[in-house]
Amino acid sequence: MSIVHRNIERPRLDIVDALAECGVATVHEAMGRIGLMQSYMRPIWRRARIAGTAVTVSIPPADNWMIHVAVEQCREGDILVVAPTSLCDAGYFGELLATSLRGRGVRGLVIEAGVRDVAELEEMGFPVWSRFVSAQGTVKATLGSVNVPIVCAGASVAPGDVIIADDDGVMVVPKAKAEQALEASRVRLDKELKTRERLAAGELGLDIYKMREMLAAKGLTYID
Amino acid sequence: MSIVHRNIERPRLDIVDALAECGVATVHEAMGRIGLMQSYMRPIWRRARIAGTAVTVSIPPADNWMIHVAVEQCREGDILVVAPTSLCDAGYFGELLATSLRGRGVRGLVIEAGVRDVAELEEMGFPVWSRFVSAQGTVKATLGSVNVPIVCAGASVAPGDVIIADDDGVMVVPKAKAEQALEASRVRLDKELKTRERLAAGELGLDIYKMREMLAAKGLTYID
Amino acid sequence: MSIVHRNIERPRLDIVDALAECGVATVHEAMGRIGLMQSYMRPIWRRARIAGTAVTVSIPPADNWMIHVAVEQCREGDILVVAPTSLCDAGYFGELLATSLRGRGVRGLVIEAGVRDVAELEEMGFPVWSRFVSAQGTVKATLGSVNVPIVCAGASVAPGDVIIADDDGVMVVPKAKAEQALEASRVRLDKELKTRERLAAGELGLDIYKMREMLAAKGLTYID
Amino acid sequence: MSIVHRNIERPRLDIVDALAECGVATVHEAMGRIGLMQSYMRPIWRRARIAGTAVTVSIPPADNWMIHVAVEQCREGDILVVAPTSLCDAGYFGELLATSLRGRGVRGLVIEAGVRDVAELEEMGFPVWSRFVSAQGTVKATLGSVNVPIVCAGASVAPGDVIIADDDGVMVVPKAKAEQALEASRVRLDKELKTRERLAAGELGLDIYKMREMLAAKGLTYID
Amino acid sequence: MSIVHRNIERPRLDIVDALAECGVATVHEAMGRIGLMQSYMRPIWRRARIAGTAVTVSIPPADNWMIHVAVEQCREGDILVVAPTSLCDAGYFGELLATSLRGRGVRGLVIEAGVRDVAELEEMGFPVWSRFVSAQGTVKATLGSVNVPIVCAGASVAPGDVIIADDDGVMVVPKAKAEQALEASRVRLDKELKTRERLAAGELGLDIYKMREMLAAKGLTYID
Amino acid sequence: MSIVHRNIERPRLDIVDALAECGVATVHEAMGRIGLMQSYMRPIWRRARIAGTAVTVSIPPADNWMIHVAVEQCREGDILVVAPTSLCDAGYFGELLATSLRGRGVRGLVIEAGVRDVAELEEMGFPVWSRFVSAQGTVKATLGSVNVPIVCAGASVAPGDVIIADDDGVMVVPKAKAEQALEASRVRLDKELKTRERLAAGELGLDIYKMREMLAAKGLTYID
Repeated sequence: MSIVHRNIERPRLDIVDALAECGVATVHEAMGRIGLMQSYMRPIWRRARIAGTAVTVSIPPADNWMIHVAVEQCREGDILVVAPTSLCDAGYFGELLATSLRGRGVRGLVIEAGVRDVAELEEMGFPVWSRFVSAQGTVKATLGSVNVPIVCAGASVAPGDVIIADDDGVMVVPKAKAEQALEASRVRLDKELKTRERLAAGELGLDIYKMREMLAAKGLTYID
Repeated sequence: MSIVHRNIERPRLDIVDALAECGVATVHEAMGRIGLMQSYMRPIWRRARIAGTAVTVSIPPADNWMIHVAVEQCREGDILVVAPTSLCDAGYFGELLATSLRGRGVRGLVIEAGVRDVAELEEMGFPVWSRFVSAQGTVKATLGSVNVPIVCAGASVAPGDVIIADDDGVMVVPKAKAEQALEASRVRLDKELKTRERLAAGELGLDIYKMREMLAAKGLTYID
Repeated sequence: MSIVHRNIERPRLDIVDALAECGVATVHEAMGRIGLMQSYMRPIWRRARIAGTAVTVSIPPADNWMIHVAVEQCREGDILVVAPTSLCDAGYFGELLATSLRGRGVRGLVIEAGVRDVAELEEMGFPVWSRFVSAQGTVKATLGSVNVPIVCAGASVAPGDVIIADDDGVMVVPKAKAEQALEASRVRLDKELKTRERLAAGELGLDIYKMREMLAAKGLTYID
Repeated sequence: MSIVHRNIERPRLDIVDALAECGVATVHEAMGRIGLMQSYMRPIWRRARIAGTAVTVSIPPADNWMIHVAVEQCREGDILVVAPTSLCDAGYFGELLATSLRGRGVRGLVIEAGVRDVAELEEMGFPVWSRFVSAQGTVKATLGSVNVPIVCAGASVAPGDVIIADDDGVMVVPKAKAEQALEASRVRLDKELKTRERLAAGELGLDIYKMREMLAAKGLTYID
Repeated sequence: MSIVHRNIERPRLDIVDALAECGVATVHEAMGRIGLMQSYMRPIWRRARIAGTAVTVSIPPADNWMIHVAVEQCREGDILVVAPTSLCDAGYFGELLATSLRGRGVRGLVIEAGVRDVAELEEMGFPVWSRFVSAQGTVKATLGSVNVPIVCAGASVAPGDVIIADDDGVMVVPKAKAEQALEASRVRLDKELKTRERLAAGELGLDIYKMREMLAAKGLTYID
Repeated sequence: MSIVHRNIERPRLDIVDALAECGVATVHEAMGRIGLMQSYMRPIWRRARIAGTAVTVSIPPADNWMIHVAVEQCREGDILVVAPTSLCDAGYFGELLATSLRGRGVRGLVIEAGVRDVAELEEMGFPVWSRFVSAQGTVKATLGSVNVPIVCAGASVAPGDVIIADDDGVMVVPKAKAEQALEASRVRLDKELKTRERLAAGELGLDIYKMREMLAAKGLTYID
């Protein structure tokens, strides 16, 4: 059955915005290293760093009809997350759909398939993380669903979950854990700040993290 | 047998130039979605958009002798299209060959293998789409053919066909269809222009393309 | 057994520096086309060109403990070369480790696995060649070895060997051959300079390299 | 946090057994084409067809400690489903672990990583679907979790879900839908039986499925 | 436009049958090493060796409607050759379609996508070469074309061309060259028969093919 | 320079033979988990388990001339190990070369490229591990070297090293360590024999390896 859930619960946008500033690597560590999409999900242009609330789309291979349906369900602060039901590199998405999403305040697209018009998307500053780039068009013949739980690039995404994406990849924070993720990320950032200063001053990680003893206990042997 | 066809028919360059402006995604749609190379063909540097007439090279793996033969067959407005007879990532092509091609008015290279000197090629502004980047050298020991029909990255290319290449990939327009491709692309661009305006103004694709009824007929269900 | 060799022999840095200027493609040709890493080793940001002396790390999958051990063994002019003992895309390395390495005069990282903080690494200007980009964290639980011979991306690397890396990829020059590599590269560069001028002036490779006769002898046939 | 859920709900084994007889392709169609793992999950030996209840393991790359923990949680009718937290081809599992699982009535293993002792596993008749085959050993240093929801090869698996696996691949039926899946599969098998007879008798799918009119309406053109 | 060519020219079946006996490797060599499909095209079961005349299908990703259309165009001695317009691993084909094809005398299937029911297909003895195995179903919503020229796995196939397939892969012989291919293959087989006897008797290829002088001339150096 | 080392040191064949019986997974563990080739090296037919002494070949892509040179250097107990200097899937090797090698007592082939005649090779019982299967022919135009150190599929191989290969993959034991590898493997096999009996009797690895305490110390939590 093909369904569209119109009402999804989203976390507060101020929390989402603060998570964007922390970045994928930090939040991922802070959350215990879960929720990362596969490393083949790459930005089509460099230097974007965004977070938003997921509007999910389960979609047939090479058929982008449901993206049009999904646009209407999007609002300020969302990120569209699209996963085809089988491997597909076709270009589901281009500049026209981005124009439409941008008008609704959508922050970006995450898609386990292809996109096109990548030069235009970069000019518009509309960020996209995808598995492929391809000019190959898609049809509008078969339904899918919007705002159902999906698996995208190896990560479970529920509607309203927080998506964080930057040059390091894409990750998912379940909406119920957004606040906890932010707190844990800030603790981590504070700690890293201090470590960075000590490292920059020439101290070694071996000493800062007190690793020497454990390494010796495990049998590490130095040879001159 | 190894042959070089010296005289190939090419379409008019003004049509070719106009196709470059349309871009790969538009022409591909306008032509009924055929002729696209595989999505692993990527530009070695971003933001080039070219079209030209194909000089084709069927070449042995890791042997670039025939590229030297092909240079002489190139003229203003051509794009060199090279396909090895089996999978190969060696670097067939670099700055020296690009210097030679540029002097003859060649617009770029499309190769289902590797290239090298990519920093220098970017500095020269010589555009290349390839499957691999590799410094691995090639030998000059075995013949191939120039200006015979080839398959490059999954697309049939005949000598003189129009090649269009940009950040979305590479496509082939059979030379006999160049004019028709241009007309169809222009129709499409006009239509897109109007659609873009309506989308930017906040109209939905669902309404512009009148999709709601068909979606309902197919059984799409909205849940509040 | 897990061991760290503290004293490794390194070639003179002036030779290493001169090799960097030659670039990967040239040195690779000059050395008889050996020592190149696989073409999947790519720079995380473009336009760096470095050479340095290898400090090698054999490391377990998804465990970066030994990189901390290796940092202490690094000095001015080194490049860290890291190979996991089985396929792994986790992000072993980020901005903090780069800060530490940079403080010791290390010129870059070559790793057959993943890295993260790629935006920050680009901002710092710290060059990295890797197989993957991934935010996935690693543990510190299992030992490896530092400054032992390793295979990285298909190339044998001994501690102290010269690593050259640029946009074309990464290559290894055995330390005993560094001087010979430099001489051969300079001969090659001289030759290329002259060839480039002749090509730019419109001469053909077919004539410069006197290929026509050999091609005919092999049976190449021109058809008008 | 690393946790082991000792008590999981499992569907009735008679339903599970009946699903095995239907096979992956049939159940997958009957369930609306969801729940299939990626096509890179392949049997290490041919001709097994099993179904069982999932005991899930979320596991670090190249560390098989948690499989030993999971063995104790398995019972008659289970299938062990293992997913590493990042890409890994190491050989987590071999003949010794299979001996242990078999003693507990476990029907097979599904793992998005490597296995080894594949000749011995085939001799034992212990079925395994994996992404890789590799002799590479793993360590026992880092924890994971047992019987938590995981994503394995692109499919969500909850503990107790029904896993069906044969030469066509691996699929997951949520435990709450096991009965419904069986009914729908049987309806489908009945229908296929009749269709097979008609096809074998020489009738065409075009006529059996009454496709000719729709094809003509879409514009299909026959040329003599 | 979606078209079906009803009348295609096919070479004589006795020539086709004789080509099957020669096998892919021999015919490929005899034809000058052209026409081989990519090495990712593998048999779903081992030890079949067939040849037949191509009925070609250009098909949308994950939509098998046109295969039903193609069945009607097949006759005794044909092989169905199917290529999707973009990358797709879905399971287009299974036991029911094989039953239908077999009834019409079709010898096998070559498809650059996925198939399912592979255990049943092996039991039936219906040979298939595919890029993927997958239980993923397909829809019937979008048209394609039958008996038009296609590119399948990197090889050009025209309707009526001879397809030869065995454990070494799949190749295409243009129908106009079928007879010439058979003659050249037989010459080659004769030659190989004699070479095999000499090799089995202990003579070396170095001597049989008189390579020693040429190797020495190229500079091969023996070191004791 | 292209060289052939005629005299290489080989370990005693009785040790080599005994290592074959241990199998790849056992010897790999016993040697501290080093020397394994990449998991993409697969047997072309199942159930062979061999060991032998390496005759190495460094070879150009798609050029098998040096294999003919290498044949003469082979003797009873050898395994031919072939690595191309860049990625190549061409079919370097078939039934004729196998006939020649078999006559000299060679036990098998390991090649990081393609082979052909796989049905015939299986019939002959000549075992091959390769990265690809392909009918694509190769030329005889460019030299390489025989019995020099090479990297094959990620593993360093010196001439005379012991190669062990079975359904789990391929590994290398440096010739100086052959005896030590055998002893360590036998210790391991003895230990495994006892463990297997205890596991078969229903004991758990958790208890046999005394893991429970360590797991608890690391924080593993059981939830009922």
